[in-house]
Amino acid sequence: MALSMKCNVKSVFRFIHKSNSYRRLFKAGKATGTTSLPKGQVFSGIQPTGVPHLGNYLGALESWVALQDEYSTVMYSIVDLHSITQPQDPQILRDNILDMAASLLACGIDPTRSILFQQSQVSQHAELSWILGCLTSMPRLRHLPQWKMKSKQKNEGSVGLYTYPVLQAADILLYKSTHVPVGEDQIQHLELAQDLARIFNNQYGEFFPEPRALLSVTRKVKSLRDPSSKMSKSDPQKLSTVFLTDTPDEIVFKIRRAVTDFTSEVTYEPESRPGVSNLVSMHAAVSGQSVEEVVRLAEGMDTGQYKNVVAEAIVQKLQPIRLEIQRLRADRGHLESLLAKGAEKARSLAAPVMTEVRKLVGFY
Amino acid sequence: MALSMKCNVKSVFRFIHKSNSYRRLFKAGKATGTTSLPKGQVFSGIQPTGVPHLGNYLGALESWVALQDEYSTVMYSIVDLHSITQPQDPQILRDNILDMAASLLACGIDPTRSILFQQSQVSQHAELSWILGCLTSMPRLRHLPQWKMKSKQKNEGSVGLYTYPVLQAADILLYKSTHVPVGEDQIQHLELAQDLARIFNNQYGEFFPEPRALLSVTRKVKSLRDPSSKMSKSDPQKLSTVFLTDTPDEIVFKIRRAVTDFTSEVTYEPESRPGVSNLVSMHAAVSGQSVEEVVRLAEGMDTGQYKNVVAEAIVQKLQPIRLEIQRLRADRGHLESLLAKGAEKARSLAAPVMTEVRKLVGFY
Repeated sequence: MALSMKCNVKSVFRFIHKSNSYRRLFKAGKATGTTSLPKGQVFSGIQPTGVPHLGNYLGALESWVALQDEYSTVMYSIVDLHSITQPQDPQILRDNILDMAASLLACGIDPTRSILFQQSQVSQHAELSWILGCLTSMPRLRHLPQWKMKSKQKNEGSVGLYTYPVLQAADILLYKSTHVPVGEDQIQHLELAQDLARIFNNQYGEFFPEPRALLSVTRKVKSLRDPSSKMSKSDPQKLSTVFLTDTPDEIVFKIRRAVTDFTSEVTYEPESRPGVSNLVSMHAAVSGQSVEEVVRLAEGMDTGQYKNVVAEAIVQKLQPIRLEIQRLRADRGHLESLLAKGAEKARSLAAPVMTEVRKLVGFY
Repeated sequence: MALSMKCNVKSVFRFIHKSNSYRRLFKAGKATGTTSLPKGQVFSGIQPTGVPHLGNYLGALESWVALQDEYSTVMYSIVDLHSITQPQDPQILRDNILDMAASLLACGIDPTRSILFQQSQVSQHAELSWILGCLTSMPRLRHLPQWKMKSKQKNEGSVGLYTYPVLQAADILLYKSTHVPVGEDQIQHLELAQDLARIFNNQYGEFFPEPRALLSVTRKVKSLRDPSSKMSKSDPQKLSTVFLTDTPDEIVFKIRRAVTDFTSEVTYEPESRPGVSNLVSMHAAVSGQSVEEVVRLAEGMDTGQYKNVVAEAIVQKLQPIRLEIQRLRADRGHLESLLAKGAEKARSLAAPVMTEVRKLVGFY
């Protein structure tokens, strides 16, 4: 009964750790210390969609936090250059960037142990993207699944939407990243980054390490109103999604209204009973228990009673995060200054790499 | 009998002045002085193809020099980011960048009156290009003539080749350029820049001026070996092209071997007598006379005698340029320092524009 969940974070890269056990990973974190961390350069990006929801948190952000204790250099980028491949309202985008920063910090991204920064503040991303685009054939991008899906939705998309996997590759290679935690739907994009590292190295001499995927059985948190689809920020049904900033009352209300079935018993059968199984999954994840443990705990309860237990466990998990987001959001200046410091660190890593790249390409 | 020549400079933009009279333009230059120059921001770029040939010089570079006396701000960029849309050997590219810089300076581009810089040294070009790419639809680029031509040649090209008109638009808009001298074959690319200025302004508020074309009847210098095609650097027939660094002996030899026809008289009939008419055009251009004047001057000569006159006139024109290129080439450090200073000036203009763009887009 593997935790084969998949997060639905609307991120450019979804960072799911290869470990099957989140808890082990997560709890082992602090104890490991920083001196004995294995060398490795982890990079990941997330689109600034504002405050994340529970699916984002359990599917990706929790593992981002854990990775800080696993690798010597960990970089998390709020990829605003990617976000404008879809139309954005500038004021909302600005707010979403700061909300995402506040949320990441509140979840446990620690600016002293990882580099948290805004992509557009590091000009080298776009520069390297141009160079890599000159090494990418047009057909190579045409068959990537996300372009096929999104361009169909909007009757052919923009140049930005078509070429964004090249910018993703630049994001990763710019820091000579060695490890990239990805969700299954991003595997083909990571393969492009690997290909481009190889193509660049073949043409200009060995330079970029080939980034490796940190792939895991991923968590799929489902919509509370329609457990056949993923939990999503853009779900028109307001009750389908739990946000990290939801109040305890809102959480209880949403979980109580969660769609289940006509069987009152609590079991974990994702195929035949997706609704209650989604509750079990969330419960296990937020309480740090296994699915078996929480099913055993729910013995004798009907789904109505069980919903109260699940809601309470989610409230327990999210309450400190919500309060911390509130606190951080109240001081935009502080958030902006944290992002500026992160960008400075990122630039200090990117600059020497781009200097080398320019030399290799023949610009000087 | 208009000078309907078209230069064959392998440049991103070809800067042909709207004035029909080069001489007027050119000679009026110095006298105009800088205090009374009309306000205007001229931008142009040229690919680093090494030392230009006579077609480049007469078709574009001579007018670049003249434009320095016509507008208050004139920027010339060696567009190395564009050059890598085709495969390049890094060492040759590096040499070609410096050779192009030396050639432009030798032709009269004056770093005290214009900003001469290398595109890749100003990161904002790639940054703005990304943003503009998010406003460009895929089909918009598919029908541009150069993509259709070049991608056919190489069985579909790279992402860089496909998107380079977007980078061109960024080159122009980054400096809020008002005037862009272009050759006929670049009109559609300038139209993309105009469209993108409009689209950006519609979406984010009035910001970019719509750049206007400086279009003129252009000079077409023809191959000496096949006057039905343009003079070209890449012509496999070595005798077809006069380079700015050719010695007097080489020039005389090439002009003597120029293809003409079996009529000995010197006339200007481009359609029926392309070979001798090409000589007349070049002669008129390098000597600063009209076509009528040089034809009158050649009365009584046969084409063999006339070739000596033409060769001598070309030698006279190119000799000081050749010597200056030699002098400049000998000191790479000096060239690099000039380009670095130019890049610094360009960045000082680009930085505040990009800061505004980032704010408008919502990045901060």
